[in-house]
Amino acid sequence: MTSEGCAVARKRSLDEGPVLRGRILRCASVMFYERGYAGTSIRDIGEAVGISSSTMYHHFANKQAVLHAIITNFMTDFVAATVPVLHDRTRDPRQRLADVIRIHIEVSDERRPELLLGNPIRYALDPDQRTEGIVLQRRYHNALLELIEEGAESGCFSVRNPAITTMAILDMLNGVREWFDRAGTLDRDRLIDEYVDLSLKMLGAS
Amino acid sequence: MTSEGCAVARKRSLDEGPVLRGRILRCASVMFYERGYAGTSIRDIGEAVGISSSTMYHHFANKQAVLHAIITNFMTDFVAATVPVLHDRTRDPRQRLADVIRIHIEVSDERRPELLLGNPIRYALDPDQRTEGIVLQRRYHNALLELIEEGAESGCFSVRNPAITTMAILDMLNGVREWFDRAGTLDRDRLIDEYVDLSLKMLGAS
Repeated sequence: MTSEGCAVARKRSLDEGPVLRGRILRCASVMFYERGYAGTSIRDIGEAVGISSSTMYHHFANKQAVLHAIITNFMTDFVAATVPVLHDRTRDPRQRLADVIRIHIEVSDERRPELLLGNPIRYALDPDQRTEGIVLQRRYHNALLELIEEGAESGCFSVRNPAITTMAILDMLNGVREWFDRAGTLDRDRLIDEYVDLSLKMLGAS
Repeated sequence: MTSEGCAVARKRSLDEGPVLRGRILRCASVMFYERGYAGTSIRDIGEAVGISSSTMYHHFANKQAVLHAIITNFMTDFVAATVPVLHDRTRDPRQRLADVIRIHIEVSDERRPELLLGNPIRYALDPDQRTEGIVLQRRYHNALLELIEEGAESGCFSVRNPAITTMAILDMLNGVREWFDRAGTLDRDRLIDEYVDLSLKMLGAS
């Protein structure tokens, strides 16, 4: 996950469109993560990807547009991966919760540099751009709350306050990326198992 | 909590020592919190407190020293308020946990601008300065882990993995300051009650 790894080829053509755009975003997210937003120029990003400034400006009007695209892109993927699982009423709420805890921990570990909505970097966005990410975040949040409410109604969860419990579970899951070290002794699957167990206990799962 | 509120009097003498030092730290923490570290100069802090630059430099060699003092001061207070409670083996582990959850949520709400160790601002410190804060943080962390292990041994908690459960509870508590709004509809005491209940459930408290 170093920015040097971005430059696999120089002077790519404009043809690649979405592929190149994806590479710019991944590369920029790693650079923002490692050097900070202020410490990274749009020229630096272009150089790391191996494209000219004019190609760079063909894709993004400015650095803020790159940041906006990273956040929206990540949150769109995250919502697409989690919300349908949470909403699938054909499956047991406990199973859906377990699946979403796995996705949340795996994705936030694997795409850590893109998690910029929970970072003060987000204030570099215009309020409208920030709102877009927050709306996506809220869709996930609401889908989890609905799952908890549904489980409480059907009697498989026993919850005093679904809204507060939702915040507690989300904060617990979001915290992982700050301390979990893939190179450390704690296995990620083990961690996921424990977090599923802790969450089911919080929900008084029967 | 606005920096304008800092300037209650101008041109204070050097005599006040610790009182003035405390005012500088509180004022600087609010300014770092509101404008960012890079957006605040040592001259800005002096002006907000109402003291000359020479008085300011009498107390702190540079802006980094101010940041270091804010973090160490806050973490020292936090450890002093929590660790003895966690270590007090004359009391029931459930009661001690409940007391510490209250302190954690209340202090991190009331002194929010000083919680800079969990903020990327901390990278403005030298590694040694940062380590000092992390060592204090670890004393709290370890005392909570010890309480959980003690409760598990005495049979009042039932915990599969005390270390992971400690991280989950700390992340849940640390998350509150990002979303809890004192002016909102959720009462802080209500929130504390719910978090005590959720934590006891996670610990399988009997």
